[in-house]
Amino acid sequence: MSSHAARKKIGQQTSYLQYSPTIKGTGTVVGPKEGNGPLAINFHEITQDELLGMSSWEQAESEFLYRACQHALGNAKLDLNQIDYLFSGDLLNQTVSSNLVAKKLQIPYFGLFGACSTMAEGLLLSSIMVDGGMASNVLTATSSHNKGLERQFRFPTEYGGQRPPYAQWTVSGGGAAIISHQGNGPYVSYVTPGKVMDWGVSDAYDLGSAMAPAAYDTLKQHLSDTGQNVTDYDMIVTGDLGIQGTTMFKELCENDGINVQDNHYDCGVMIFDSNQDVHAGASGCACSAVVTYSYIYNLFQNNKINRALVMATGALHNPQIVQQNITIPTICHAVALEQQKIGDSNG
Amino acid sequence: MSSHAARKKIGQQTSYLQYSPTIKGTGTVVGPKEGNGPLAINFHEITQDELLGMSSWEQAESEFLYRACQHALGNAKLDLNQIDYLFSGDLLNQTVSSNLVAKKLQIPYFGLFGACSTMAEGLLLSSIMVDGGMASNVLTATSSHNKGLERQFRFPTEYGGQRPPYAQWTVSGGGAAIISHQGNGPYVSYVTPGKVMDWGVSDAYDLGSAMAPAAYDTLKQHLSDTGQNVTDYDMIVTGDLGIQGTTMFKELCENDGINVQDNHYDCGVMIFDSNQDVHAGASGCACSAVVTYSYIYNLFQNNKINRALVMATGALHNPQIVQQNITIPTICHAVALEQQKIGDSNG
Repeated sequence: MSSHAARKKIGQQTSYLQYSPTIKGTGTVVGPKEGNGPLAINFHEITQDELLGMSSWEQAESEFLYRACQHALGNAKLDLNQIDYLFSGDLLNQTVSSNLVAKKLQIPYFGLFGACSTMAEGLLLSSIMVDGGMASNVLTATSSHNKGLERQFRFPTEYGGQRPPYAQWTVSGGGAAIISHQGNGPYVSYVTPGKVMDWGVSDAYDLGSAMAPAAYDTLKQHLSDTGQNVTDYDMIVTGDLGIQGTTMFKELCENDGINVQDNHYDCGVMIFDSNQDVHAGASGCACSAVVTYSYIYNLFQNNKINRALVMATGALHNPQIVQQNITIPTICHAVALEQQKIGDSNG
Repeated sequence: MSSHAARKKIGQQTSYLQYSPTIKGTGTVVGPKEGNGPLAINFHEITQDELLGMSSWEQAESEFLYRACQHALGNAKLDLNQIDYLFSGDLLNQTVSSNLVAKKLQIPYFGLFGACSTMAEGLLLSSIMVDGGMASNVLTATSSHNKGLERQFRFPTEYGGQRPPYAQWTVSGGGAAIISHQGNGPYVSYVTPGKVMDWGVSDAYDLGSAMAPAAYDTLKQHLSDTGQNVTDYDMIVTGDLGIQGTTMFKELCENDGINVQDNHYDCGVMIFDSNQDVHAGASGCACSAVVTYSYIYNLFQNNKINRALVMATGALHNPQIVQQNITIPTICHAVALEQQKIGDSNG
């Protein structure tokens, strides 16, 4: 399929970034429950007030996102006027959390919708903008809010409805990163945007099972496109498959001869302790963003890992199509992060 | 702001595409009301059944989008397996119209949210992917449906509520284009993604007034970044300002010394006749897409124009933030189309 013109494309779905765009700085802000979890030490800000002083859950989510962007700017030591573009998206209807942040920041804005895969979609497109010479520094961000999104997708939490054991807990938080043409890594080397998968799940609580086939499909494609093995990565990091989805993902991989037993990690499993009563782990756009841009990023900064494949997963339904008996479409985008530059210098 | 690395960036917000990505084929499908309008002869398909045989408005919208993609593929003489990526977005909650099409097409998918600016956002990002060497052919599409979106954003049309005279009529339709590394034009030369503007409009019927400042801001920035004048373009084409928004846009431009009296056109004004009782014109994601990818595209194909600046405008609110007294954020992205290749050959 790739012609002469698509010189950076390898295989069916993957692009190779030749100028080593780098994550120059990150910002993560979470709510009190996430701040009581095992990754707490990594987050840049933990708020005890899940409303952040705002008057609605929607505005609170937008504030999580805004603060994450501010932390990323500070940590990258860049001013807002040095940022060329913003890529942002979230799960609120019409991605209003992102739209309101874009209004505050006053930089050119690309709105994304990838549900919980938005972190990887934004990271991927930002890296392409930098690699393609359209930008020096790109800000990418995403957010979710437990209270606003449970109300929008299922029931208001105040209703106190029973959650099934396979339900995941929507993370309250925001995560942001700045992708730059120069910096000290980690570097983005390969990006593999995913296809939409739908294996027939219609239960809007069972998103781990719905998304597992998408993660499996993208991982398989990524390895095939790049000629790599799972063991070429120190970590294969999925976004928010949760406990049930992780089990299914591992089975799908194993049945296909892909052994991920030793180096697979799921952000939705890692962010909460088993005693925090979240049932099958975490989900939400912020889940993979706050884990990748804090804990995983720190592993690179501290030279603990050399290569990670970040694969954020998303469920692309809304309540209306679920009510109309349409099964849940899902997607997974993969981004390879490297401790060392590979490819050409970007001097 | 632009450093050495951002070699394609010019000015504050614009990128110059050096390899002349081209629109290789387009597809447009509209409903009966649009098919009775003055541009009818340009559309690739006009359906008399606004449900297209589906069982819900959401599925009907997705079918508009799917058929538009099929027409674009046919007109570009390309098979689906020659398409590298899909960029698509729409106004339905969680952009489900696009998600369901991505599921059918089974190619890697980037979900966008830009409201009625999505046509330009998708065209812009698709062109960047081709110009950056990540793709040979990219499909970009968007859709809207009068019945589904009026219910979602305002009232079900069956309710028969009174619309104010400045309200615009949401277009039912889908528009798609294939951006390729080689072809006969029109070529994409400059892209100027916009910033979010909000001048305080809070009436969700008055979107033309809300979006006019965004169109003005992006046009001004585009001219400044590229060192061009309005008269360098045969047509300045805004997306869906409608009658009221067009008046405000022209005033804003005129007050700033930018004369668009002679070559400004608005898709929301052009698509319906004044006797079709749509009040202030048309809107919806499909509005700019079906006009640009049929009528404007044909003007290029027939050598009637040499240069057009397509500026799709979007209102980035949802009903919840309007209820919360948050004013409406808006955006406008600009894409310059050229009859002749400029820049390097892409042989």
